[in-house]
Amino acid sequence: MAARHEGGVGPVDYLRTEQDTLGSVNVPANACFGAQTQRTAGLFPIFGAQKLSAYPQLIEAVLHVKRAAARTNVAIGAMPNGTGEAISAAIDHLLTQSLETDFPIHSFHGGGGIGINMNVNEVLANLANLQFGESFGSNAPLHPNDHINLNHSTSDCLSTACHIAARAAWAGLETELLGLVNDLGQSAAQMGDQPKLARTCLQDAVDIRAGDYFGGVAHNLLKLTERAGADASDLAAVNLGGNIIGRSDDCDPDFFNQVIHQLNTVLEQAGLAHDLRRTDNLFAASQAHDPLQNLASSLEQIARTLIRFGGDLRLMASGPNAGFGEIRLPVKQPGSSAIPGKINPTIPEFTMQCAMMACGRAATVRMTQDHGELDYNPWQMLVVIALLDMIALLQSGVSSLRRNCVQGLELNTQRNTENAQGLGPSLMQLKRKFGYSRASAVAKQAAGDVSIVRAALSGIEEVQ
Amino acid sequence: MAARHEGGVGPVDYLRTEQDTLGSVNVPANACFGAQTQRTAGLFPIFGAQKLSAYPQLIEAVLHVKRAAARTNVAIGAMPNGTGEAISAAIDHLLTQSLETDFPIHSFHGGGGIGINMNVNEVLANLANLQFGESFGSNAPLHPNDHINLNHSTSDCLSTACHIAARAAWAGLETELLGLVNDLGQSAAQMGDQPKLARTCLQDAVDIRAGDYFGGVAHNLLKLTERAGADASDLAAVNLGGNIIGRSDDCDPDFFNQVIHQLNTVLEQAGLAHDLRRTDNLFAASQAHDPLQNLASSLEQIARTLIRFGGDLRLMASGPNAGFGEIRLPVKQPGSSAIPGKINPTIPEFTMQCAMMACGRAATVRMTQDHGELDYNPWQMLVVIALLDMIALLQSGVSSLRRNCVQGLELNTQRNTENAQGLGPSLMQLKRKFGYSRASAVAKQAAGDVSIVRAALSGIEEVQ
Amino acid sequence: MAARHEGGVGPVDYLRTEQDTLGSVNVPANACFGAQTQRTAGLFPIFGAQKLSAYPQLIEAVLHVKRAAARTNVAIGAMPNGTGEAISAAIDHLLTQSLETDFPIHSFHGGGGIGINMNVNEVLANLANLQFGESFGSNAPLHPNDHINLNHSTSDCLSTACHIAARAAWAGLETELLGLVNDLGQSAAQMGDQPKLARTCLQDAVDIRAGDYFGGVAHNLLKLTERAGADASDLAAVNLGGNIIGRSDDCDPDFFNQVIHQLNTVLEQAGLAHDLRRTDNLFAASQAHDPLQNLASSLEQIARTLIRFGGDLRLMASGPNAGFGEIRLPVKQPGSSAIPGKINPTIPEFTMQCAMMACGRAATVRMTQDHGELDYNPWQMLVVIALLDMIALLQSGVSSLRRNCVQGLELNTQRNTENAQGLGPSLMQLKRKFGYSRASAVAKQAAGDVSIVRAALSGIEEVQ
Amino acid sequence: MAARHEGGVGPVDYLRTEQDTLGSVNVPANACFGAQTQRTAGLFPIFGAQKLSAYPQLIEAVLHVKRAAARTNVAIGAMPNGTGEAISAAIDHLLTQSLETDFPIHSFHGGGGIGINMNVNEVLANLANLQFGESFGSNAPLHPNDHINLNHSTSDCLSTACHIAARAAWAGLETELLGLVNDLGQSAAQMGDQPKLARTCLQDAVDIRAGDYFGGVAHNLLKLTERAGADASDLAAVNLGGNIIGRSDDCDPDFFNQVIHQLNTVLEQAGLAHDLRRTDNLFAASQAHDPLQNLASSLEQIARTLIRFGGDLRLMASGPNAGFGEIRLPVKQPGSSAIPGKINPTIPEFTMQCAMMACGRAATVRMTQDHGELDYNPWQMLVVIALLDMIALLQSGVSSLRRNCVQGLELNTQRNTENAQGLGPSLMQLKRKFGYSRASAVAKQAAGDVSIVRAALSGIEEVQ
Repeated sequence: MAARHEGGVGPVDYLRTEQDTLGSVNVPANACFGAQTQRTAGLFPIFGAQKLSAYPQLIEAVLHVKRAAARTNVAIGAMPNGTGEAISAAIDHLLTQSLETDFPIHSFHGGGGIGINMNVNEVLANLANLQFGESFGSNAPLHPNDHINLNHSTSDCLSTACHIAARAAWAGLETELLGLVNDLGQSAAQMGDQPKLARTCLQDAVDIRAGDYFGGVAHNLLKLTERAGADASDLAAVNLGGNIIGRSDDCDPDFFNQVIHQLNTVLEQAGLAHDLRRTDNLFAASQAHDPLQNLASSLEQIARTLIRFGGDLRLMASGPNAGFGEIRLPVKQPGSSAIPGKINPTIPEFTMQCAMMACGRAATVRMTQDHGELDYNPWQMLVVIALLDMIALLQSGVSSLRRNCVQGLELNTQRNTENAQGLGPSLMQLKRKFGYSRASAVAKQAAGDVSIVRAALSGIEEVQ
Repeated sequence: MAARHEGGVGPVDYLRTEQDTLGSVNVPANACFGAQTQRTAGLFPIFGAQKLSAYPQLIEAVLHVKRAAARTNVAIGAMPNGTGEAISAAIDHLLTQSLETDFPIHSFHGGGGIGINMNVNEVLANLANLQFGESFGSNAPLHPNDHINLNHSTSDCLSTACHIAARAAWAGLETELLGLVNDLGQSAAQMGDQPKLARTCLQDAVDIRAGDYFGGVAHNLLKLTERAGADASDLAAVNLGGNIIGRSDDCDPDFFNQVIHQLNTVLEQAGLAHDLRRTDNLFAASQAHDPLQNLASSLEQIARTLIRFGGDLRLMASGPNAGFGEIRLPVKQPGSSAIPGKINPTIPEFTMQCAMMACGRAATVRMTQDHGELDYNPWQMLVVIALLDMIALLQSGVSSLRRNCVQGLELNTQRNTENAQGLGPSLMQLKRKFGYSRASAVAKQAAGDVSIVRAALSGIEEVQ
Repeated sequence: MAARHEGGVGPVDYLRTEQDTLGSVNVPANACFGAQTQRTAGLFPIFGAQKLSAYPQLIEAVLHVKRAAARTNVAIGAMPNGTGEAISAAIDHLLTQSLETDFPIHSFHGGGGIGINMNVNEVLANLANLQFGESFGSNAPLHPNDHINLNHSTSDCLSTACHIAARAAWAGLETELLGLVNDLGQSAAQMGDQPKLARTCLQDAVDIRAGDYFGGVAHNLLKLTERAGADASDLAAVNLGGNIIGRSDDCDPDFFNQVIHQLNTVLEQAGLAHDLRRTDNLFAASQAHDPLQNLASSLEQIARTLIRFGGDLRLMASGPNAGFGEIRLPVKQPGSSAIPGKINPTIPEFTMQCAMMACGRAATVRMTQDHGELDYNPWQMLVVIALLDMIALLQSGVSSLRRNCVQGLELNTQRNTENAQGLGPSLMQLKRKFGYSRASAVAKQAAGDVSIVRAALSGIEEVQ
Repeated sequence: MAARHEGGVGPVDYLRTEQDTLGSVNVPANACFGAQTQRTAGLFPIFGAQKLSAYPQLIEAVLHVKRAAARTNVAIGAMPNGTGEAISAAIDHLLTQSLETDFPIHSFHGGGGIGINMNVNEVLANLANLQFGESFGSNAPLHPNDHINLNHSTSDCLSTACHIAARAAWAGLETELLGLVNDLGQSAAQMGDQPKLARTCLQDAVDIRAGDYFGGVAHNLLKLTERAGADASDLAAVNLGGNIIGRSDDCDPDFFNQVIHQLNTVLEQAGLAHDLRRTDNLFAASQAHDPLQNLASSLEQIARTLIRFGGDLRLMASGPNAGFGEIRLPVKQPGSSAIPGKINPTIPEFTMQCAMMACGRAATVRMTQDHGELDYNPWQMLVVIALLDMIALLQSGVSSLRRNCVQGLELNTQRNTENAQGLGPSLMQLKRKFGYSRASAVAKQAAGDVSIVRAALSGIEEVQ
């Protein structure tokens, strides 16, 4: 059993020895990464959790930043053209292949996220050096810190990459959410004027149109999606250039002035949003990751709204006999290994499960906000992992909900019609005619018998 | 509007001037408290929140500790007999009157809770000095720190008082919870063999006895109550004597050895649990308040179980026509200002509201655990306020639920009987006879028509 | 002890008997409220929790809605002028006096909030009827439901009032938050170029200006305040007129068209924001209270930022000897009942306590979102109570923090200067001169001795 | 990018067609699983989340239950001996190989967990049928439902398996936690009487022994570990035999009586705890999963204690110059890609990250409790996934903390000695000699100058 849980870098036969500032480290001879990645892999056991490579959007975002930095360094004369091209070629290579072997570390790995930055730095340096005929571990002509990391640092590179990755991931979820809003709108339009009972506190209340209910759900989801979208847009403000806790003078001033423009060019070529701008206050950006937290917070509300809507679907589909039975969900899988013929609302339940999991990730993100301190919030790596998890979870849940449930949902017209003509709605009609007090008196007299209310309504009572 | 929100000590005409270690302070001339309480009241505006006096159980618990300390100090010769008697008389006085005027400070007031301890120390010193003919503010012959606080400190006094107060409050809630378990057990017994439909995933499943459902709820509640009870019992371990971050030698050794015995005597006289013992590790007790956190955690589970049970009651009572309609809740108040005759399940909803509020207090308590640090967790005052809130909230919710809902709850026998003979239960009988695969085939053929299943059951199908 | 916890309506000698739709109820003879309030008070025990009267902003907001409804009813001819004037006079009366006696019910009281609406309806009817020479309980000429509640219902009245109350309360907190931002900005400006050490992961890093830190905090707080402000502005969209789960035709069409304009006039006269508009989708507004939830969510982020900033203040002020000792907080109260001369950072701790309590209320609000269902979210009363609690708690915490801590905060210039010239900052200067790899080598050689780094910096090492 | 996120079952060339109760399904020709697993894989997209195969302990636990069921069915004559042996052989096969291919579904998959049960049923049936010379998909001689699932159902099988898996996982974490307690105890013993400053509210307070601090931490961790251990032990009560919502008569009475004994035998052979017993109330066990929730709740407290202890380590190691500098953590990796020589406390930070992630999972588990309903809580699959995540996360964090930090932690004796002789401790000595009031006067006079306090202590002041 233990063997199943092993993570990190397994035993290898052939090793090379590398040096870093702390001493020498044995690295698998054919590893693209180097000493610091090896240390990181050894220090943080994975035990079945997600490796960094499970977050390709994040690694890719770091690669985009590295490419922009290299281009800027070339443009300002801090790096020979050939060096920049070698880095760019290495990035091209990584963008087209599986990242699993080269990024073996735990998805989070202590404060600050130096692990991911050095993993990328080492892999890029080795791949670039190959192009100069140097073997892995040579650290020459390109050095992970002195060249790949030139004029930026873990802090601003990672923060910027987190914003890029979160926006890219959000774009996928946003599409699904707007698709769900659209699906619900279509349902509302199709169901249009079909009657439906509305309830308050689960008690029969008044008649509405079926479209009113689904239209309301769509409206609330749309509003929350727009709010999350605004939060995602705010991530366009990045701190690249504020290398260390926001100081703008730790990099070459020309680099500082040009790098975000270069990055937007890189992002445009990658088909991503390319409207980044520098954040207003670099120190503030280092102290906290509030913009990521804002998005997580808005996503949690979407998650809770999905839980609530999934619950509504279960409730309206309850039965088939002894429940509400107002709607029929598409039949997708047998519902019980023991009860014949049983169908369960597993699709909305899956959506609810995804959403509950997402809420847990939001709770983690929330904790990082008050556990930050002083000039730097060290939990950003955890934040982005949890946030990307949230987005993926919600995307799974919404994607399945749309295609396997909402798009095939049907009304039980007979039941809805009966319900809409029942006691509560009839009493409301009576109230409109005769006022609250008198209608209440009839309600008391009727004691649940709708025919008495209908009689009152049709004026029979009036005659007497 | 602003005036409505004012808290603390209002404007007064007559003042006396007192000295403390920081300088002079003006105190209302007739105030029982002194300089430090006046400072605390001025520093922490209340804005409609609860004052310390809203937590009489906590103030009384501190008074019990003060009485035990005074008695011990007399017993070991650290204090004249008359001094101890004056303190005890002052405590007697406070225990029988409203605490509102004498304890005007915010219920929490910065880390450490020195505010409550000094408020008690000052009030007791002044009341005791009165007995010696001295006026308020004389600080003689009894001084708040040198005498009332002798041989203990805020830290161990308050921690011990928190344990006492939490246990006393829990005892009341425990009685209500066990009462609810008993009520449910009685319901289960009375309903006994009446049929009821069981559902999974809100879909009709199999028939059970009504007593099975209510008995199950009672069982789970009982188990959770027992767990909380065990946590409350663990609060018998107190740190009195470990004055400062757990050092046992900051007080007289004789005091250290005798004070808990004295305290048990005091508690017995007050009709409270009197089985206190000293905690195993005084440093650990100063570092964290895990035992209080344990209780809060168990209470939250009770709260969530009540939310879930309240939801069950709402669901089973949904209708009256277009819902489950399996049970009838006692009618207690009109349900709508606009819909005549509508009755809402407000009682279980109130219980759910109390429970949701309690969950929020639990979230606060949880945060204090990871925000502690080093030798001392400074958030204990917040913990005990939130914990006492939880207990009171749950007691309100359970008390109302029992008397206004559970005790008068009735089954809708006709509906339950029909449900229990419906499609799902019939298919299960078929499965018992012929196995899963064949029953599934009948289910498919029946397409929701229970008569076909019943025909299959009665063997008509077999003949063909 | 038990007596201390009693809530609700106490025993009275003189009673009058009233009728409601469920039967007769005994009400204290001199009570301004009526049968339904009496029922509510009896059903929901308070046990030391807050009564409705602890939320005057909410009651006042309901009164504003009632006044607007009465004026509209007069304007459209649904109510005689004199009736409207009597209602308005009753409202005038309530706005100027304590609400404690007339609103004795629990602050929350089951789903839907009918309790608060009927409490207001009954009190207004009785007070208005007095003006016609009728005694309490006459229900004539004005009836609580038929007149005071005319053309609206609990649902839309309360939801609208929640929005009004939350905005009014937020306005007070917003002022304090912007004040804190301003105080921090002033601190940042005054401290300006004084040096300060910046840390990452609590390890010495680089030198910054003291103003950089405080300016960053101010910036983040401002951004979060603006976000909350936007959420509060969204509360201008209200559902008044959508009486029951969003149907717009349960009231007179003229009432529907005019009431929000009337309400804005009323609010303007009350000195409150008067830019209300009808929400886009009335069904959506009934299904959920997302706008209130949005505000609570933004407030929680402010709360967590305050926890983090309070923690920073504690840390920077730690010592006086064996801590960071970078700043000095104003001395406001003795810090220990046992340790002479000790001063504790109780002011930022109080702010943190308020914020932790606020986070708990936010957790409660969050739960209500996924526990809503179908056409109506019944938890609104709980939401608004928790939200008003949050606002009041944060206002207490920020108010005290500004005046008792931030405004008098001082830098320890000597300590900061020493820190800024220490090892980390010196190594960074070295890196700027000679690059990362070489600076790392010096760092290793120096082994913590800053003089070796300084020598390398000044070129002595170079000569060798 | 999209391709990187694909989950579930990819495109295949060769398919076989299977029937289930809903119709025909195409399954990869060589797939060990069948129609229902194929449906489940298609319905619930994974998007980078964990597949079921990432939880081998859970799948193995289900296999243990299946083996026990088969053995019992043979023993009671419900199944031929050969059939049971074929099932057992199939289980043997699965226990020794990777589970990734055969269990391709999402780790959670809608309410009830039928997905995991049918995945196991189908794989076992196919593997067993192979032994009879039948090909995959034959469903004969063994049928997934009629044979593998005989006399039990998803509900009781999965619930029992969750208990088994959680206990097995906990055993690993418990070992690490007790190891950490032991490591801390050893540290405490070795550091023994070395002086250390204790602080309250981050302000210098009194001198203690270094062992007092670490011993306190060990004590609290031990207590919490014992509490979690007790919760884990409670999981010995299982509901196997209560097939559907707790009815005990849905399986053969002999099966009901013998299966748990058989299961204990199976577990003993697998080297797992084998003291299972049937739960007291089968209906209660179906309604809720409180015992799993209890464990999650206790684990969260451990997580929060680890956050707090990780924070303590960071704080005590802060510096090296401008911080507390009381302890030195082992140097394990370079701390910055930009600041030379910087070492960060990444190990305790990793532990804190793991713990924050664990807290998020606990939040998810908590939500499932109040979102249960009626006879069955459908969220158990989510609960066990989140719980196993929590355990693995904490095991990673504790494992690294022990080996990479605590075991090599050193005291900075010089700093601690200076601290312990500083102002606060000296004032406390003065207080012991002369009382609180007089020591406070000296403190005021000293204004932070410890030499004045020392003079007062040594009596020089006395002479004057």
